Amino acid sequence: MILTLSCPDQRGIVAKVSAFLFERACNILDAQQFDDQETGQFFMRVVFDADGADHDALRADFRVVAQALSMKWTLRDRKDRYRVMILASKFDHCLADLVYRWKIGELPMEIAGVVANHPAETYANVDLTGLPFHHLPVTKETKFEQEAALWQLIQDTRTDIVVLARYMQVLSEGLSAKLAGRCINIHHSFLPGFKGAKPYHQAHARGVKVIGASAHYVTGDLDEGPIIEQDVERISHRDTPEDLIRKGRDIERRVLARALRYQLEDRVLLNGRKTVVFTD
Amino acid sequence: MILTLSCPDQRGIVAKVSAFLFERACNILDAQQFDDQETGQFFMRVVFDADGADHDALRADFRVVAQALSMKWTLRDRKDRYRVMILASKFDHCLADLVYRWKIGELPMEIAGVVANHPAETYANVDLTGLPFHHLPVTKETKFEQEAALWQLIQDTRTDIVVLARYMQVLSEGLSAKLAGRCINIHHSFLPGFKGAKPYHQAHARGVKVIGASAHYVTGDLDEGPIIEQDVERISHRDTPEDLIRKGRDIERRVLARALRYQLEDRVLLNGRKTVVFTD
Amino acid sequence: MILTLSCPDQRGIVAKVSAFLFERACNILDAQQFDDQETGQFFMRVVFDADGADHDALRADFRVVAQALSMKWTLRDRKDRYRVMILASKFDHCLADLVYRWKIGELPMEIAGVVANHPAETYANVDLTGLPFHHLPVTKETKFEQEAALWQLIQDTRTDIVVLARYMQVLSEGLSAKLAGRCINIHHSFLPGFKGAKPYHQAHARGVKVIGASAHYVTGDLDEGPIIEQDVERISHRDTPEDLIRKGRDIERRVLARALRYQLEDRVLLNGRKTVVFTD
Amino acid sequence: MILTLSCPDQRGIVAKVSAFLFERACNILDAQQFDDQETGQFFMRVVFDADGADHDALRADFRVVAQALSMKWTLRDRKDRYRVMILASKFDHCLADLVYRWKIGELPMEIAGVVANHPAETYANVDLTGLPFHHLPVTKETKFEQEAALWQLIQDTRTDIVVLARYMQVLSEGLSAKLAGRCINIHHSFLPGFKGAKPYHQAHARGVKVIGASAHYVTGDLDEGPIIEQDVERISHRDTPEDLIRKGRDIERRVLARALRYQLEDRVLLNGRKTVVFTD
Repeated sequence: MILTLSCPDQRGIVAKVSAFLFERACNILDAQQFDDQETGQFFMRVVFDADGADHDALRADFRVVAQALSMKWTLRDRKDRYRVMILASKFDHCLADLVYRWKIGELPMEIAGVVANHPAETYANVDLTGLPFHHLPVTKETKFEQEAALWQLIQDTRTDIVVLARYMQVLSEGLSAKLAGRCINIHHSFLPGFKGAKPYHQAHARGVKVIGASAHYVTGDLDEGPIIEQDVERISHRDTPEDLIRKGRDIERRVLARALRYQLEDRVLLNGRKTVVFTD
Repeated sequence: MILTLSCPDQRGIVAKVSAFLFERACNILDAQQFDDQETGQFFMRVVFDADGADHDALRADFRVVAQALSMKWTLRDRKDRYRVMILASKFDHCLADLVYRWKIGELPMEIAGVVANHPAETYANVDLTGLPFHHLPVTKETKFEQEAALWQLIQDTRTDIVVLARYMQVLSEGLSAKLAGRCINIHHSFLPGFKGAKPYHQAHARGVKVIGASAHYVTGDLDEGPIIEQDVERISHRDTPEDLIRKGRDIERRVLARALRYQLEDRVLLNGRKTVVFTD
Repeated sequence: MILTLSCPDQRGIVAKVSAFLFERACNILDAQQFDDQETGQFFMRVVFDADGADHDALRADFRVVAQALSMKWTLRDRKDRYRVMILASKFDHCLADLVYRWKIGELPMEIAGVVANHPAETYANVDLTGLPFHHLPVTKETKFEQEAALWQLIQDTRTDIVVLARYMQVLSEGLSAKLAGRCINIHHSFLPGFKGAKPYHQAHARGVKVIGASAHYVTGDLDEGPIIEQDVERISHRDTPEDLIRKGRDIERRVLARALRYQLEDRVLLNGRKTVVFTD
Repeated sequence: MILTLSCPDQRGIVAKVSAFLFERACNILDAQQFDDQETGQFFMRVVFDADGADHDALRADFRVVAQALSMKWTLRDRKDRYRVMILASKFDHCLADLVYRWKIGELPMEIAGVVANHPAETYANVDLTGLPFHHLPVTKETKFEQEAALWQLIQDTRTDIVVLARYMQVLSEGLSAKLAGRCINIHHSFLPGFKGAKPYHQAHARGVKVIGASAHYVTGDLDEGPIIEQDVERISHRDTPEDLIRKGRDIERRVLARALRYQLEDRVLLNGRKTVVFTD
């Protein structure tokens, strides 16, 4: 099982949590913690074997510990895979990559569905066989209705996590709030370098020597959500905007896949407008 | 010798330049070129042996070729080392690094002098023995006079290149113009990410996962000059602002040293607000 | 068109080549050269527009220049795409990646066929629709016949380039010789680090902190062919061999795709047991 | 204080250690652990405030816990800085770098001395003022006596950690054994890539596209000791062996400095022929 928690720091948190697990014959396989000395906030992630234990009792008992320490916490059986909805637009390299990684067992999730604002035939290069596909076109005029339909779909499919795989549509403040901490976007620039539209063209115009991509939680504040993962690649004056787009595809898909994997393994904890990421 | 040139692109430039050198028994050791198809501008750098040739005649003859093709060009004997003035402020890691690299022969230059807005005793950790040291303190009120003294010094010492080695002072628009294309600054962030003051604190507050440094030409427009070189390093939520500053020192000094070496070897050509860098 | 050449260095090569092109109204778009001062060998790659020119005449005329300078050379119209055969075994991440990149137009080639030593149903995660698939199983006993069939297929399909996309079979010395300079393998280690079998397990056992992958030309000498491209990723003590395999997949596919792209654009020239790679 | 420990894994280790600290009013500032599922060995590093506690009593009490769990452990007050002896040979870039980092407070250590097999005047580019310098020349014939003198010096100066800063001499098996787990070497290759002499020349001859350096513990088995840290840089066919040596200097000094800092902060635990490095 995976336990994550955050709370105001005080003496004895680790002692209490580890004693709690020890007393219930749980074996800690991995534990990471972080004490943010700036904010006085404490973060912890524990992976443990609880073979002998009654999971519901465990949860009920831990609630008491958590309450005493004012914790925000999650406790999940790793066998209960998250249900993920992937949203895509015209470019399908992130969609194709996530689906392939899922197929070979690299991403432990259920795909609740694929939503696109283009029709299915746009994705001829991606094998979506067996995946529920939803075409939800959107215009300025229909954005409100489209988001309502999307939200309905998220609820109907019991979606836990939403991934904007180069979705290119800005979610409204309302929907962003509904999905706080469980909607990941890939921005095709090294934030906060080039916010907004056409970042590779911006990067080319500015003449930077390194480009990157950023996976972040979606918030109402566009391109300002907490960053989960970033990566970069070196470029030169010889690279045209088209070369940057090509090189960028590689960065985008690996950054997004890493961020999603972290999320699927409960490795990402929110810390204000930042994240704590307990990487492996 | 090293020839650099840029001019509007047209057919036959390479043919003309290489024929010119061949006819004068010069042997090309290295040549790189770049054709900016966006702006129609052509850039070239040629390193050649001109042992038998009269350098002055070569220069005079090339002027004719250059004029016909509307070239901006430089032709320099590699034995004529550039004279470099290093400007430093409180932090001396870039200064110490450049001086050490110069001592072991890694940077082919003459050091025309070291200028600091702090007194010599500030630099106890750097061995400046034998180097002309100038203490030019500066306040808001005396900035005008200080820059005048600095400019006088640059002229008196026949300084070719000015390096702001974490100088922390913004040069005025007037002095920036005087030093256009020959004054290199190291900005301690991955531009254009965090312009202005305290970029590592900004990076920490934003929660980025990668930090960097940027060497660029100084222009009147602060932190907006053409970028010569950038590099990055991965960080995590565990890094405090102090850790970023420490990790940043390593990035800054290697980025600045690379940019300066490129400049000393005539590898950097201006292309509007960008650079063409013919790296090795 | 793309011209590549290598020959013993002497004065005037660039002048002769560029004059040759200028006289035939060809416009140089890009040119890179390299003078290996150790071996006295000169290498060059020129991309040029030859719209007005007769390609056959161009070729015939250049033969004279090339002969006089003892050149090895190639001259190719970029519109004549190379025909590529991809060989795969059990792991299909490199195969899937190359096919996807080809579909979205990132790799300018024709796929002459896919050859595997496992049956088609092994590749359920890769959409091979429309691609000629050949199942050529192999055992120790049938290796000779299998390679003969493979070679026949290569000839029948007019294959220019063979890619071992984690093919996991060692080609015989004889077949390697037939494919010299046009058969690319991806080795899943940072060569010459961990040659031979199970390199990620070797890397894990040795406790290295960085892993990598290497794309190289196949020669009779296993894992010793000229290296075209390498890349790496940082790991830690927390990574199990399975984690290394997962992280390795990302490195392998991007290294192989880069190497193949270089090959498709005539950017790789052989220099003894090394390569000259004129990257963009 | 910093506590490190390793022991056979079993249930309740974290619970016992954290309860131990909690009961003594110690506040955990940072804790990292690692459970090597391959070997069944458990590793932990805890940083804690023990302001109110009697350090000697703490140590005595912990001995009981440690014994019960068959721990190898260390407990150190961060104020008790390690005493470090730096060994250098002809190349002084690592020596210069370590001394500078120490001067600006980046490396929390006492320098017990600098030992060189060349006379003091060799190090004109490094400011060794105030540091005990020992010239211990060595030849094949005098190696035994030189090592005896070195070992005497290590004991006399109460040296904790020995750093081979490009020392270029192979320590004997006997001396290596005396310094097990506290002698760090920087090897100027990406191990296990190019062991032995002149690795940059080997790398150049092999035509690799990335070079690196490795900091490792010294053992009797040359270049085979447990690796602490590695880093790399991209190179190209244009780089001569001299360029590799220059680029390598940058990698070497930052890899060695990182490894030493980890050692000074008790972040490195031995795990057979590998290391567990609890990085920040």
